[in-house]
Parts: sequence; structure tokens; C-alpha cells
Amino acid sequence: MTASTASPLPSVNRQFILAARPVGMPKESDFRLVSAPLPALASGQVLLRTVFLSVDPYMRGRMNGIRTYADPVDIGQLMIGATVGKVAQSQNPAFQVGDIVVGYWGWQEYAVSDGKGLQKLDPSLAPISAALGVLGMPGMTAYFGFLDICQPKPGETVVVSGAAGAVGSLVGQIAKIKGCRAVGIAGTDAKVAWLTGELGFDAAFNYKTTEDYVAKLRELCPQGIDCYFDNVGGAVTDAVLPLLNVRARISVCGQISQYNSAKPEPGVRPYIFLLTKQSRAEGFIVSQWMDRFPEGVAQMARWLKEGKLKHREQIVEGFENAPRALIGVLQGDNTGKMLVRFASS
Amino acid sequence: MTASTASPLPSVNRQFILAARPVGMPKESDFRLVSAPLPALASGQVLLRTVFLSVDPYMRGRMNGIRTYADPVDIGQLMIGATVGKVAQSQNPAFQVGDIVVGYWGWQEYAVSDGKGLQKLDPSLAPISAALGVLGMPGMTAYFGFLDICQPKPGETVVVSGAAGAVGSLVGQIAKIKGCRAVGIAGTDAKVAWLTGELGFDAAFNYKTTEDYVAKLRELCPQGIDCYFDNVGGAVTDAVLPLLNVRARISVCGQISQYNSAKPEPGVRPYIFLLTKQSRAEGFIVSQWMDRFPEGVAQMARWLKEGKLKHREQIVEGFENAPRALIGVLQGDNTGKMLVRFASS
Repeated sequence: MTASTASPLPSVNRQFILAARPVGMPKESDFRLVSAPLPALASGQVLLRTVFLSVDPYMRGRMNGIRTYADPVDIGQLMIGATVGKVAQSQNPAFQVGDIVVGYWGWQEYAVSDGKGLQKLDPSLAPISAALGVLGMPGMTAYFGFLDICQPKPGETVVVSGAAGAVGSLVGQIAKIKGCRAVGIAGTDAKVAWLTGELGFDAAFNYKTTEDYVAKLRELCPQGIDCYFDNVGGAVTDAVLPLLNVRARISVCGQISQYNSAKPEPGVRPYIFLLTKQSRAEGFIVSQWMDRFPEGVAQMARWLKEGKLKHREQIVEGFENAPRALIGVLQGDNTGKMLVRFASS
Repeated sequence: MTASTASPLPSVNRQFILAARPVGMPKESDFRLVSAPLPALASGQVLLRTVFLSVDPYMRGRMNGIRTYADPVDIGQLMIGATVGKVAQSQNPAFQVGDIVVGYWGWQEYAVSDGKGLQKLDPSLAPISAALGVLGMPGMTAYFGFLDICQPKPGETVVVSGAAGAVGSLVGQIAKIKGCRAVGIAGTDAKVAWLTGELGFDAAFNYKTTEDYVAKLRELCPQGIDCYFDNVGGAVTDAVLPLLNVRARISVCGQISQYNSAKPEPGVRPYIFLLTKQSRAEGFIVSQWMDRFPEGVAQMARWLKEGKLKHREQIVEGFENAPRALIGVLQGDNTGKMLVRFASS
């Protein structure tokens, strides 16, 4: 009998479900906190107690009723999301009570799992929350989405939008590691100061207080733009286009400025720029490099250890604040990686 | 002494120069027909008598005062363009009077050349005008711009805009050779009939008489769109985006709907589609494959001989009609390759 129990059994499990499809920016009332009974463990199962929930811009897309690259969250369904937690009970010989694991069990305090998709973490190697950030999905997004699609070369100029976010802040630092000029676009002066003062970006600007993005980019990118890593879209991206160099590469990672629009707002079509500059724009989803994640995690961990990568977490305390945390991410409130820490942890 | 003369020396050379930068659609008055003396040949030079001038959409871009991938034509300067002609005099041992050559000597009846950039044609292998079409720049544009950027696979759906043009008509046929479903977009019912009736496109539609492009594309592309070869841009391209399949490829060859716009007209930004479909849009200029042109010419010639490729020429008689021919191309008057034949030939 491998069952073991380290703490008293919880009687109920609190979960956030999708209550309504948001119109524009999500409201707290679009989420509902519900209590569900916790089923008893069957053989092979583990009970997980959530410690951290990752809060990411892509979640907004899943709240629409439209299938994109993944199924949407249905009304009444558990909100999806990446999580780190502790094994609280185990009927699975591969897991011991107290093991720390990362998985994708969504917005809930507890989850029952058969162990598939769980990965054990070694807290002595890195803080466990890193598995949701620099060593997790955002880290892999930065590593593969930038290096594979942009193929940056030393001396090139790399522009990053959403540069103070979990992904963008890593992309700019990887650009520096690769010998590029890194220019960030962010939404507050404090973020701009963090990018240039702490992370080593060569330049950055606050798009909320800048009138003419093209003029500003021209000033900060005197050699033009070779790589553009786009988290934001909209007018910021429009302004990058006239400055593209020949054979420029645009990695389309996110379009956070557009996620709350019911239909795409009109803007500048990029084709004439792609044509005259023989340039390329490519969208990706990080899972396309799934089989290479070990390479990405190993490299990012090495750079972390060498002090070449810095990362910041913004932690919202208390599960009940998860909707507010997501709304904050969509409003650009976060610097670095946004996480929710569960009180029970 | 290698000099020889097959016909009486011309006294003057007629040329079209750029008279004014067009605002919107070029007018005939934006060109001026001038007479220039023909210099005597120096050693190593040949005198070329133009037989065919190629008229192509890209010429519109060169009439603006803006450097794109090539220098603009200055006011008062000879209009550029690809040409086929006969050697009328030769002081160059590599060329004999009567040789037929293809080159890039522009809108003029005669040209003096040192032989660089000239390529001899064998009239017994293909009609000499083919060097300006299926075996020339438009053919290479179709061959490399489609095959290299779209990498079509059998069973995929390929949509081509400007499908009845010199390039588009070849792209659809190459798509069929590669086992794809080819769907064309063109601007007259006669063009549509030509595409489906003679060239083997699986389907086509007239965008000028179609109200809802997305609905029409959905009907004609029941499996979605894997490759889009774009000559046109604008609303037609906007309509392709929602139908892209995962890992779709857009080859940006031309944007003829936009060439006469002083600034890009607002439209649908493609990024959210590229992102959710992990898709790619890439612009090119045919010269990037220059070192592989022999491969392209050989393959296109083989397909022509095998009857797998058909091509059509639309010939405007008389050099003085060259401006009208270019305006016609920009208005979509041509089916297949537009050429000007010189009366003196």
C-alpha cells in the first residue's frame, strides 16, 4: 500500500469556472468561485495541492467561444492554466507525498491526477515558481520563439514589444547574449527603467507617453530593425514595419492589444513592407517545440546560473484574487511573470 | 575587325523617360517620348534593336521617388524594363549581327551595350518572347516564389490572387503539377473561364462581381487554405486570413491593389491569424534566387514541352503604346503576359 497522507483531507475543492464570455476586457464577474467535492483517490492517482497558478495573456483567448489552436473553455468549465503544487496524497508509486510537481491542472486549489503530464521539480536547483516562468512555458516561448524564428545574428537590432512581460523580458536578454542590440517597448516608465537599468536592454521607450512611435524607433534603432518579437500588435507593430531591414524576421508571439477586440481593428497591412524588404512574419505556439524543451530548459538554467538572465516575479497572494491577476496582466500591470500564490501553501 | 552591319544605321533612338511622378494610377502624360542620338559603337560594344519590351506591375513602384529594393527611376530618366532584341551592329566578338538576346535595357528602340547582362536566345527552342515570360522573370517568380516559399504538398489547397496574370497563371499550374487544389482569384469572367477551362485550375472566381470573398473562398476551399500566393493584397488578402490552415504559408509576390496608393490603406492585420495558425507570410524578390535561375528555366521549359504548362501573351503593337500597356497591366486589362512589340521589328 503506497497511500500516505501528510495533511488532513480537504473536504471541498475551490475552483474558478468561466461564468460568462467576456465582452472586451474581462470582468471579475466573468469568473465564478465554486466548491466541488474532492473524489477519493483511485489506484494510480495522486492528490495535488496547488501552490502557484501561472497567469498568462493567452488565457484571454480561451475565454472566447472560438476554437483557435486549442479548444475554448466552455461556460461552467474550469479555467485552464499551468500550476505548481505539492503531492498531498498518493496512490501512485511514482509520486511521494511532498513531491513538488508542475502540471496543467487549472484554477483550483486541489486536483486529482493519474500522474500523466506531471513533472517533478527539484527545489534545490531553482525556486519552484521558475517552472512557470523562466524555466517553464514563458521561458520556452522566449527561447524557441525568438531563436528559432528570428535566428538573430550578432550586431543585429532586435525590437521587443511587451518587453517587460514574462516572455519579452527574457527575449531582450537572450538578444543581448547573442550579441544583438536589444530595444524594448513597454507601458510604464518603471518598466522602461527596469529594462535598461537592470536587464541590459540597450534602449527602451514607454509607448503610452510617446506620440510618434516611428520617430522614436528610428532614433533608438539607427541601423534599422532586423528582428521583431511581437507580444502586443496594434499600432506598436504598425510602427515597426517601415524600419524593417532587408530579410527581417518578425516572430508573432502574442497580440495582447487585440485580445479584447470582438473583431480585428483595422490597421496597417504589412505585406508591402514584407515584399520590398524580403521579410518574413511567422506565428508560433510554444508546444510546437515540445520535443526540444529539455534543450531549452537546460540552456535557460545555464544562463540563469551564469547570471546572464534575470527574471522577476509579481506574485498575487490568495487564490480568490486570480481573476484580478489575469485582468492585471491584460492591462499590463505586471513586470515580469505574474503568479498567484495559494494561501494554503 | 568584327564590326558588321545588317541594316542601315538608325539616326536617332526613341526612348520613354519618366516625365512626372504619378499620383495614383499613372497617366500617359507621366511618360515622355524623346529622341536621343545613338552614339557610335566603341570596341567591345553592340547595338541592340528592341523587339519586345516586358511590361510588369513592379514598374509602378520604380516610378515613385522612394528607394525600395531598387533605386527609383528619376524624373527625366529612361524607364527601366526587361527587353528582347536583335544585335544590329557588333564590335564585340561574342555577338554576331542577327543574334537574339534578352537583357534589361529599358523602354527604348535601340541600346548600346558592352554585352554584360545579355543572354543569347535560341529561337528554335522557344519563341523569343518566352524569355520575358514563362522562361523569364515572371516564370522564375512563379517557380521560386511559389515552390521555395510555399513548399506545397500534394493534396493541399493553394489560392492565387492575380491568377490570370503572367505570374499567377503559372503558379496555379505549378500547384496542379504538384498535386494541389488550385483556386484562382481574377477580375473578369473571361479570366475565370480561362483559368478553369484552359489552365486546369480547380476553381476560380471574379472578385469584381463577388460580394462576400470569405464566403466564396470557404465554398471553393472546403479543406481550408494551405498556401496563398499573393499578387494583389487589399481586401482579397484580408479574406484569405480566416481560412488559413495550421502551418499555412503566404508568399507575398505583389500588392498591385496598393501600388497606386500614396500611403497604405488600412486593412486587416494578419498577426492574430498567423499566431493562432502557426503560419508564415514572406515577401521575396525574384533576384534572390538568381544563382538558381538555370534550374528554374530548365524545369519550366521541360513542363512547357510536356504540355503541363500553358501560357498566354497579350501583345501591344507599337512602342508608342508602351505607357498605355503599363496602365493596362495596373488596371488588370491583361490575361497572361503583357508585352510591347516594336514596329521596327
